[in-house]
Parts: sequence; structure tokens; C-alpha cells
Amino acid sequence: MTATSAKLPIPFIASAGYANSGHWIAALQLAMPHERIIAFSELSLAQKQQCQLAIVANPDPAELRSLPQLLWLHSVWAGVERLLSDLGTSDLKIVRLVDPQLATTMAEAVLAWVLYLHRDMPAYAGQQRQGLWQPRDYVKPQDKTVSLLGLGALGEAAALRLLAAGFKVCGWSRHPKNLENIDCYAGIAELPQILAKTDILVCLLPLTADTNNLLDADMLAALPEGAALINFARGAIVDDTALLAALDSNKLKHAVLDVFRQEPLAAEHAYWQHPQVTVLPHISAPTDMHTASAIVAANILEYRNSGTLPPTVDARRGY
Amino acid sequence: MTATSAKLPIPFIASAGYANSGHWIAALQLAMPHERIIAFSELSLAQKQQCQLAIVANPDPAELRSLPQLLWLHSVWAGVERLLSDLGTSDLKIVRLVDPQLATTMAEAVLAWVLYLHRDMPAYAGQQRQGLWQPRDYVKPQDKTVSLLGLGALGEAAALRLLAAGFKVCGWSRHPKNLENIDCYAGIAELPQILAKTDILVCLLPLTADTNNLLDADMLAALPEGAALINFARGAIVDDTALLAALDSNKLKHAVLDVFRQEPLAAEHAYWQHPQVTVLPHISAPTDMHTASAIVAANILEYRNSGTLPPTVDARRGY
Ligand SMILES: NC(=O)c1ccc[n+]([C@@H]2O[C@H](COP(=O)([O-])OP(=O)(O)OC[C@H]3O[C@@H](n4cnc5c(N)ncnc54)[C@H](OP(=O)(O)O)[C@@H]3O)[C@@H](O)[C@H]2O)c1
Ligand SMILES: NC(=O)c1ccc[n+]([C@@H]2O[C@H](COP(=O)([O-])OP(=O)(O)OC[C@H]3O[C@@H](n4cnc5c(N)ncnc54)[C@H](OP(=O)(O)O)[C@@H]3O)[C@@H](O)[C@H]2O)c1
Repeated sequence: MTATSAKLPIPFIASAGYANSGHWIAALQLAMPHERIIAFSELSLAQKQQCQLAIVANPDPAELRSLPQLLWLHSVWAGVERLLSDLGTSDLKIVRLVDPQLATTMAEAVLAWVLYLHRDMPAYAGQQRQGLWQPRDYVKPQDKTVSLLGLGALGEAAALRLLAAGFKVCGWSRHPKNLENIDCYAGIAELPQILAKTDILVCLLPLTADTNNLLDADMLAALPEGAALINFARGAIVDDTALLAALDSNKLKHAVLDVFRQEPLAAEHAYWQHPQVTVLPHISAPTDMHTASAIVAANILEYRNSGTLPPTVDARRGY
Repeated sequence: MTATSAKLPIPFIASAGYANSGHWIAALQLAMPHERIIAFSELSLAQKQQCQLAIVANPDPAELRSLPQLLWLHSVWAGVERLLSDLGTSDLKIVRLVDPQLATTMAEAVLAWVLYLHRDMPAYAGQQRQGLWQPRDYVKPQDKTVSLLGLGALGEAAALRLLAAGFKVCGWSRHPKNLENIDCYAGIAELPQILAKTDILVCLLPLTADTNNLLDADMLAALPEGAALINFARGAIVDDTALLAALDSNKLKHAVLDVFRQEPLAAEHAYWQHPQVTVLPHISAPTDMHTASAIVAANILEYRNSGTLPPTVDARRGY
């Protein structure tokens, strides 16, 4: 099997109209000079019949179904909830992107927008618009708690950056964790506890059946008055109606949202013009094509040499 | 001399109408239980005749002149340009605040607003106001140069935070310096060189005869197209007309200004409503009354015990 597939080109399959396919194919080709990387549309019928491996970026499920021998997919994104739901009960194996560069970029984004909230930038911007000169109280990072929901590749890297910046840091995951200087909680039963001590809540969970709508009215109510939310994971983890209500009642001071149920965010959505919402167009941690291609290449080389796959996504738990 | 002055209360002298005098006196008193700290207005005539030492926060020069035996002042601020100009040729010694907590807070502010610029927050805020969903190119910190003008107590601490955040860091001072991983320049002749390689320029210089209007049209012209400026030092270091022209021509992308020639910034000033200017009300690094009082107390205790002063301001060089 390894020998045969080595001779076949590897298709790159993206969503219809994805503008960056050409760049991806070039970057992947550069990282894998001994493979041939081609667009899905360039696969011959015979190649489609034999193809065992594809590299994907939100692929069209119909295109995946046209490859009957497909054994595994390497996604160039870290989040795979859409692939999983598109693939249903198929036993195709999925490898997602785990890239230290992505974790570094996400940790930087978390630090940047935590500091944005910590240093009261939204309030100072409001004061500037009003021509109001008014210093606000400064609270040291040692007296603020930032909590990470999700302590995976991205959440842990972000937690370490926040610790280095002087914040008190809490973290929450599915399995209990023991991380130095981080106050760790696990499981749904402990979520209200961690929320109750949080000044700035950062969501870095995968979207799964368990995390869908996790931050609903009840959970947001568990936060202290005046807390703030940063969602850099997936829009559907937050109940939008509950969040807007919490902002409007000033229960929550501010929300920084990089991800939405529908992207691009619909023109008429209340978030756009809400003074307590910072809308970002899914930019907190862009994949770096070059480091990602190198990682995909290393995983494929290992597979060619030994037939082993890197850790694959657990379809039952959803990440 | 030490024996006599130990018996005298130490006046705290602030500008007329300064709202925090009471809090300062309480914090200083708490830090120095063996001294008596009182407001200037509570000094008796006899005490005024003998008083050798005062703690000051932008004091009224007339009040200082009414203390004929005054030998030295301890300022609770880091910047002393106003004291120096008020005192003229007097040979009163000035001790300014050097507080590691202040350096930490300033370094945090520099990191926060550098990340604000690095992660394009002003542009994303503009896009949000327009309802525009448009990811912008991400450039890694390794590919951006942040330059610190001033490598003193505050500038060096800020430089280290920026290095840890992954930026290329340059620094500029009066005397040549050798700091690990920082590309150091010194003296006015080398200023255009450092400016030419700067993406984000951070000013942490003291205001002196040499730095007054230092960032004028010529110096701003030495920056690359699209650079940004952060001034957390003193307003008069920047030529406001030149800065506005550089912003209006898009030579400079953005300016974050925490300090102004006149504070509060006048209601009609063009900075308030300028889309490329972030106006902050002198909040980048507020003095922490408690750590500052502890440092003033330690300096005064040393003086009481040994008669020696901590390093004093060099009136000729102006800092
Ligand atoms: N906005 C952006 O630009 C961007 C970029 C990249 C990724 N993302 C998003 O970030 C997400 C996280 O990425 P990652 O690489 O850090 O994922 P990961 O390594 O799989 O980590 C997921 C973390 O979430 C925890 N978790 C999962 N389900 C949970 C549950 N039901 N209750 C409590 N904790 C739960 C996991 O707990 P255990 O450790 O116990 O398993 C783990 O700590 C991705 O799924 C993606 O959606 C966004
Ligand atoms: N916005 C705020 O909230 C806030 C708060 C605190 C302080 N500040 C401002 O920050 C300033 C800096 O504080 P600091 O404690 O870091 O001062 P500092 O320790 O005295 O350091 C001053 C630095 O500037 C350099 N310098 C002075 N004159 C120069 C010149 N003509 N050319 C080149 N370099 C020159 C010095 O060079 P050498 O090392 O060669 O002497 C030194 O590196 C204060 O003066 C104050 O105005 C602002």
C-alpha cells in the first residue's frame, strides 16, 4: 500500500472558491519535493480510484466521497468540527494541524487582547470619542484572574504567556491537569467554580457536541459582575442571545469575538455596532503556510516510510 | 544636621488643588512610622525656617522658596523636567522616583500598545465601524523592529519585554550601551540610522533641552513609510505639527500618545478626533503610591542614618 500510494499525486482539496489554494499547493510542493501535490480538479479518474491520502482545507464532502480508497486526510487547520460533521460515520482518519508556530501566534493574540482589556483600551477609545480626559484606576495583573477554557495545544501556550505577563491564571479541560502555577479545573461540574473567579475569560475549546452553546445564560451568570470574554475558538460555543443580554445589562463589560456561528458575520448582526463588542474577522491565529506545510510534509514522510499516522482526531469525542 | 532634621516633620508639597495629597501623606506616613509627614500648609513658621527635606509632587515653586534651609527634595514622579525648570539655578538636590514597579508597569504598557499596533487593532476597529469583514496580512514579530528612544529605568525594562515577545529590538541612548540581543545606538548622529529601520518607535526619553522637539519633521521623515509612534515620555519631545502632517500624508500609520505639551489635552486639539491617533490621558505608568512610598522611606532612612543621598538628578544634563 505505501509503495503504490507513493507514486500517486496527493490532492489538495479546499472549499469551492477558496482563494489560497494555489499558494497552498506551491508551499506544500516546496516542502515535499518527492511528492506531487495537485488540485483536486487535476486528479484523473484512475487516480481518484486509487487515492489514499489528501490534504484538505474545509473540503467539499462530495469531492471526498468521490475518492473510494481514501484512508486519511491531513487538514491544514487546527479545528476539525466541520470535517467531522461532513464525514458523519465514515471511518476516514483525520489528522489536524498541530503547529507550534500556530500556538505561538494564538498565545500572542490572547496576550494582546487580554492586555487590551486589562489596560482598558475600549473604555479609553470611548473617552477619546467624547473628548474626555479621565485616567481610570489601574489594577495590577497580579490582582486579575484570566481563565482559559481549553488547555490544549493553544490554551496551554496562551496560559504560559499570561503567567509570564503577571496575571493569575486558571485553566479548564476535560481531563484533570497539573500545570505549574496554573489553577486547573476539569469537567463540566467544575466550570461554574472557575467562572466565579474569572475577570477575563478566554475560550480556546474545540467545537464539539459538549461545547456547543456551552457559554449560555446560566454559565455567563456565573461570571462576576464586570468580567470580560474573549472567544478565539468557535462562535457556536457561545449563546449569542445570552451574551448580548449579559453585555446590555452590564453584567459583562466587554466581549472580543474573532469567531461567529456564521462567517463572515452577517451585515445586520448586532455585534457589529455594539459598543461593548470588538469584532475581529477570524484573525487571531492565521495558519502559517510555510510552517504548516513543513509539518504536513514531515507527517506524510513518516507515513511513507513507516506506514504510521500522527495522532488522529477522535471522532467520538469530537476533537 | 541629621539629628535636628530628624525631629522636624517632613512636608509633602504638591501642586495647588492636587486631589491625592491626603492619600500620599497617609501612604508615606505608613511607610515611615518614625517620621512625621504633613501637608505644606501645616508647617509652622519655625518649622519652615528649619526644614531641610521635602517630598514633592509638582510642587508650587513659591512654597519651595519659603523653605530657606531646604537641601533636597524627593519627587514621587520619575520625570523632573518641570521641577528643574522651576528651580532654575538653585543648588537644591533632587531625587526622582526610580521604582521597579513603575518600570514593570511601563514595560507592560509598551508591550500592550505595541501589540495593539502589531495586531492592527486600530485598523480592525475602523473596519468594525464600517461593517467590513476583512482579514489583514499577519507579519510575525520576528519580522518587525521596535525601537526604544531612551534605555533608562523604563526603556530597558520595556526593551526586555519586547524581546521576550519576539520582536527585533533597537535602542537609543546618550551614552553607548551594550545590551544582549538589543541593537544599540547612541547620540544624535546615530538617531536617523535607528529610525530608518524602525516599524514601531517608542519614546521613553526624559524631556531636556536636547530632547525638546527632538522628533521634528526631519526625524519623522527618517522613519520608513507606514511606521508608527508611541510617546509615553513627554509631549514636548514631539513636534505636534510635524506629527500631524506625517499622519495626514500616511507617512506614519498611527500614533499612540499618552503625554502632551498641555495636559489635559485641550478640547479643540486635532489629536482628539484624528482617526490615526490614540489619545490616552497620561496613564501608561501610574506611580504606585505604596511601592513608591516604600522607596521614598528607604531613601530617607538611609539619609537619616548616614547622611547620604541616593543618586540625584544632574541639573546640567536635565535628567
Ligand atoms: N480563531 C482562530 O484563528 C483559531 C485558530 C486555530 C484554532 N482555533 C480553535 O481553537 C481550538 C482549540 O485548538 P487546540 O489546538 O488547542 O485543540 P486541542 O489541542 O485539541 O485542545 C482542546 C482542549 O479543549 C479541552 N476540551 C475539549 N472538550 C472539552 C470539554 N467538553 N470540556 C472541557 N474541556 C474540553 C481539551 O481537554 P483535554 O485536554 O482534557 O482533552 C483540551 O484541553 C480549535 O478546535 C479551533 O476551533 C481557532
Ligand atoms: N507617561 C507616563 O505615565 C510616565 C511615567 C513615568 C515616566 N515617564 C517619562 O519617562 C521618562 C524616562 O524615565 P526613566 O526613568 O527611564 O529615565 P532615565 O532612567 O533617566 O533614562 C533616560 C534615558 O534616556 C536617555 N537619554 C536622555 N537624554 C538623551 C539624549 N539627549 N539623547 C539620547 N538619549 C538620551 C538616557 O541615556 P543614558 O542612558 O545614556 O543616560 C537614558 O537611557 C521620564 O523622564 C518621564 O518623562 C512617563
